[in-house]
Amino acid sequence: MDLSSMNPKDVRLMIRNGELTGPTAGMCPGYAQGNLVVLPKELAYDFLLFTQRNPKSCPLLEVSDTGSRCFFESAPGSDIARDIPLYRVYQDGILIGEYPEAVNFWREDFVSFLIGCSFSFEADLLDAGIPVRHIQEDKNVPMYRTNIPCTPAGVFHGNMVVSMRPLPHRLVPKAVQITGEMPKVHGAPIHIGDPSAIGIRDIAQPDFGEAVTIYPGEVPVFWPCGVTPQNVLMDSKPSFAITHAPGHMFITDIKNINLKY
Amino acid sequence: MDLSSMNPKDVRLMIRNGELTGPTAGMCPGYAQGNLVVLPKELAYDFLLFTQRNPKSCPLLEVSDTGSRCFFESAPGSDIARDIPLYRVYQDGILIGEYPEAVNFWREDFVSFLIGCSFSFEADLLDAGIPVRHIQEDKNVPMYRTNIPCTPAGVFHGNMVVSMRPLPHRLVPKAVQITGEMPKVHGAPIHIGDPSAIGIRDIAQPDFGEAVTIYPGEVPVFWPCGVTPQNVLMDSKPSFAITHAPGHMFITDIKNINLKY
Repeated sequence: MDLSSMNPKDVRLMIRNGELTGPTAGMCPGYAQGNLVVLPKELAYDFLLFTQRNPKSCPLLEVSDTGSRCFFESAPGSDIARDIPLYRVYQDGILIGEYPEAVNFWREDFVSFLIGCSFSFEADLLDAGIPVRHIQEDKNVPMYRTNIPCTPAGVFHGNMVVSMRPLPHRLVPKAVQITGEMPKVHGAPIHIGDPSAIGIRDIAQPDFGEAVTIYPGEVPVFWPCGVTPQNVLMDSKPSFAITHAPGHMFITDIKNINLKY
Repeated sequence: MDLSSMNPKDVRLMIRNGELTGPTAGMCPGYAQGNLVVLPKELAYDFLLFTQRNPKSCPLLEVSDTGSRCFFESAPGSDIARDIPLYRVYQDGILIGEYPEAVNFWREDFVSFLIGCSFSFEADLLDAGIPVRHIQEDKNVPMYRTNIPCTPAGVFHGNMVVSMRPLPHRLVPKAVQITGEMPKVHGAPIHIGDPSAIGIRDIAQPDFGEAVTIYPGEVPVFWPCGVTPQNVLMDSKPSFAITHAPGHMFITDIKNINLKY
C-alpha cells in the first residue's frame, strides 16, 4: 500500500483503527504534522502564554476547545485521543506509559495544543536540493539541550531544545531563507556553527534522537525544536499530561504551503 | 520640539508626565506602536485564545504577567497604566469615561495585551512610494465592520473590522507583498475590491474613523484591523476593561524591521 499518496483524513482513520502503529515520517507529504500536548485547563493559560512568548520553539497551529477531542480547523473530523499511533501519559511529570490510544485517560477539563513540526520545512529543503542528513541516514533527528533560556510564563520555564542538521557551507544561507519563510514550523535557525556557543558540549552525543555524520566542510545548523515544550512541561511536573510519542505525530489537513502565509 | 527624532523611552516618559496628551501618529518613526487591551485574569484565557485563533486581526506583540504594569520585552521600564496619552475605561461593556492615566483603576488581577498596529506597515508603504490616503488627507484611517466571522474562543465571538486604503491598480500587488511580510502588524490585505463582497454597504460611511477620497482608477484595499478585538470584546460585555483611546497608542522599543523576522 502506498501511504504517500493517501490523504490525511484516510491516514488518520487507519491510525484510529489500529492499522498503522509506527512513526508517521514520510506519510502524507505536503501536509503538516504536529506535536501534541494535552493539559488540564488549570494549566492551559500558563502554557498558552508560554507558547505566545516562545513562538520559535513553540509555534502553535491550533488549540482545542476545553474538553473537545477535535482540532476543528487543522483536521475536521479528527479524534485527538485516537488519531496518533502512540501516546505518552505523564502523571506528576513522570512518564507512566505509552498507549496506542488516549481515550481511557480523557477528561472533560483537557485542552489540547498542536505545535508545528520541522517535518514541514524538511520537505522544502529536499525540494531545493539541500540534503537532510538524518533522512539520508534513516535516523531520528539529533536534538540537544541548550543554554538558551525560554521566556518564562507562569509555572513554565526552562531552556530551549534544538534540532541539528549539518550542511555544506555554501548551502547554509539558502537553508536560512527557506526555513525563515515558515515561522509556524520553527522558522529560521537559532544558531549556526560552534555548538559550545549555545551550551552543547558534545555534538556526537545528542540528548534526544540519534547522532548523524558531519562531513569535513560542513557546518552544524541548529533550529528551535518542538521537544522544547515537552521538556519545559515535564520539568514543571504537571499533575497530568498527554503527548505524542516521539516521531508519532498528529497528521493535519494543513498544506505546508499554507503555513507560509 | 522635534518628537520624530526622540527615542520611545523618552517619549513614553513625556506622556507619563502629562507633557504629551494627543494622538501618537508620527511619533518615533521606525518603532512599532500597539493597541492596548486590559482585562481581569478570569477573561484572559479566552481572550488569549481568541488572539491565537485570529492572528490577522489580533496579532499579539506581548502579554504582561498578571498584575504587572510593564511590558518587559517590548518596552522595558514602561508603565502600562501611565504611558498612553488617553485611556478608555469600560464597565460591563459600557464606556464610562476617558482618562489621561489608568492608575486609579488598576487591579492586581489585570492582564495587559499589546496588539500590533498598522502604523508599522504604513511607514514601509510610504518608503516604497505607495500613497496612504488618510495620511495625505490628515484624517483617521477609515474602518468598517464586515461580515467576515472571527473564529470564536470561549465567551468571545464576532466579525472582523477592517481598515481601508485606496490604491491605484498598479500598486496593489506591491502593497500586498510589503504588508504580507509583516504578519505581526496585520499582514496582507484580507480583501481587494468590491466592498459589498465583505458586507460593507457604503464605502463613504465608515463605522470608525473618517471617510477618505477614492480617485477614479483606484481600488479599495482592506486590511484586518486592530479595532476588531475591542469590538468583539465590548460585544461580550466584560465586567471591566481598559483600552487605549483610538489613535492614542502605546509606543514600544520594537523596531518595525524586527516585526518581520
